[in-house]
Amino acid sequence: MRKIFEAELRGVGEDLVQMAVAVQTAMEGAGKAMLDRDIQAAQQVIVDDAKIDQMQRDLDERCVHILAQQAPVATDLRTVVAALRMGSTLERMGDLARHVAEVARGRYPDEAVPPSIRPVFAKMIEAAIDASKAVVVLLNTRDLELAQRIEKDDSVLDNLHMETFGELLHPTWDGTAQEAVDITLLGRYLERFGDHATSISRRVVFLVTGRVHDILQHS
Amino acid sequence: MRKIFEAELRGVGEDLVQMAVAVQTAMEGAGKAMLDRDIQAAQQVIVDDAKIDQMQRDLDERCVHILAQQAPVATDLRTVVAALRMGSTLERMGDLARHVAEVARGRYPDEAVPPSIRPVFAKMIEAAIDASKAVVVLLNTRDLELAQRIEKDDSVLDNLHMETFGELLHPTWDGTAQEAVDITLLGRYLERFGDHATSISRRVVFLVTGRVHDILQHS
Repeated sequence: MRKIFEAELRGVGEDLVQMAVAVQTAMEGAGKAMLDRDIQAAQQVIVDDAKIDQMQRDLDERCVHILAQQAPVATDLRTVVAALRMGSTLERMGDLARHVAEVARGRYPDEAVPPSIRPVFAKMIEAAIDASKAVVVLLNTRDLELAQRIEKDDSVLDNLHMETFGELLHPTWDGTAQEAVDITLLGRYLERFGDHATSISRRVVFLVTGRVHDILQHS
Repeated sequence: MRKIFEAELRGVGEDLVQMAVAVQTAMEGAGKAMLDRDIQAAQQVIVDDAKIDQMQRDLDERCVHILAQQAPVATDLRTVVAALRMGSTLERMGDLARHVAEVARGRYPDEAVPPSIRPVFAKMIEAAIDASKAVVVLLNTRDLELAQRIEKDDSVLDNLHMETFGELLHPTWDGTAQEAVDITLLGRYLERFGDHATSISRRVVFLVTGRVHDILQHS
C-alpha cells in the first residue's frame, strides 16, 4: 500500500514539474512574441495554453483520486493539498503568459511597447523566465535556498514594474492611450506571474520545513 | 461518525458564506471609495482584507483537518476540495476589492476616474456588487438557476469592461497617462472579480450536478 502510495505521490510531483516546464516554455514564447514581434511564437503560446489547462484538470483528478483511495494524513495529506494549489497557480501562470502573447499579437506587426520602455520590459521578461525556470528546478529539488532566491528575485520584478509606471507617468511621456493600456496590462501580467512563482516557493518551503510564511498571493 | 462529519461539512459551508459576505462588504466599500470619494470606506476595505485572508487560512485548516480525520470519499471529498478552491477564490475577490479601494485612496481627494468614464464604472461596480451578493445566496442555497444567472451576468461586466477601453481609445480621449493607467487597472480588477464569481458558480454547479463545465478561471 505504502509503495503504491509513494508511486502516486511521485506521479503528482512529476505532473507539477511537467506543468512548470510548460509554463516556462510559455513565458519564453511570450517573451519572443513581445520583444521580437514573433507572431508564430505568440500563436503557439496561445494555442498551447489549453494544454496547460488540461494538465491542471488531470492533476486535480489525480489528487482527488489519491485522497479518495489512500486517505493520506499528516505530511502526505499536506503534499496532496499543496499540489492541488500549486497546480492551480501554474495554470494561472500559463494564462498570464498567454495574455502577454495576446497583447503582442494584437499589436503585430508593430512593437508591443514603444522603444523608450522596451528595455524595462526586456528585463521583466528575463526575470519572469528566470522565475519560471527556478520553479521547475525547485519542484524537482525542493532546495530551500532556491526558494529563498525566487522570493528575493520577485522584488526585482516588482521594482521593474514600478519603473514602467515611472516611465509612463513621467512629464515627458507622449505615448498614445493604447500604449498606456498595453504597458499597464503587460506590467501587471508579468508582476502577477512573479507573485505566483513566489507563492509556489512558499508552499514548497512549507512542505519541507512545516513553517508557514504567508502563502497567500499578495497583490 | 457521520453526524460529526456532517456538522463539520456544515461548518465549512458556513465559513464560505461568511467569507462571501465579507467579500460583498468589501466590494460595497470599494464602490463607495471609488464613486463617492469616501476615504474612510477605502481605508476600511484595505484594513479588513487581512480578515478575509485569515478566514481563508482558517478554512484551509478546517478542510485539511476534515480530510485527515474523516477521509471523506465521493461527493463529500469533492465538497471539501471544492471548498478549498472556493476559499482561495473568495480570498482573491477580497484582494481585488482592496485594489479598487487602493486606487481610490491614491487619487483622493480627486475622483478615481474622470467624469466621462464614471457612468461605466458605476455600472461595473453595481454589477460586481450584484455578483458578490449572488455568490452569498448561491453558497447558501446552491440554486442552479442563480448559478446560471451569475454566469450570464458576468458577460455584462465583460461588456462594460470593453466599454471602458472604447472610451479610453476613442480619438476624443484627452486624459492623462495616470488616468489611463487607473482606468485600465480598475477595469481589470472588476472584470477579474466577475470571473471569480463565475468560477464559484461553476464549482457549485459541479457539486450539485456532477457536471463539469470548464471551471478554470479564464482571462
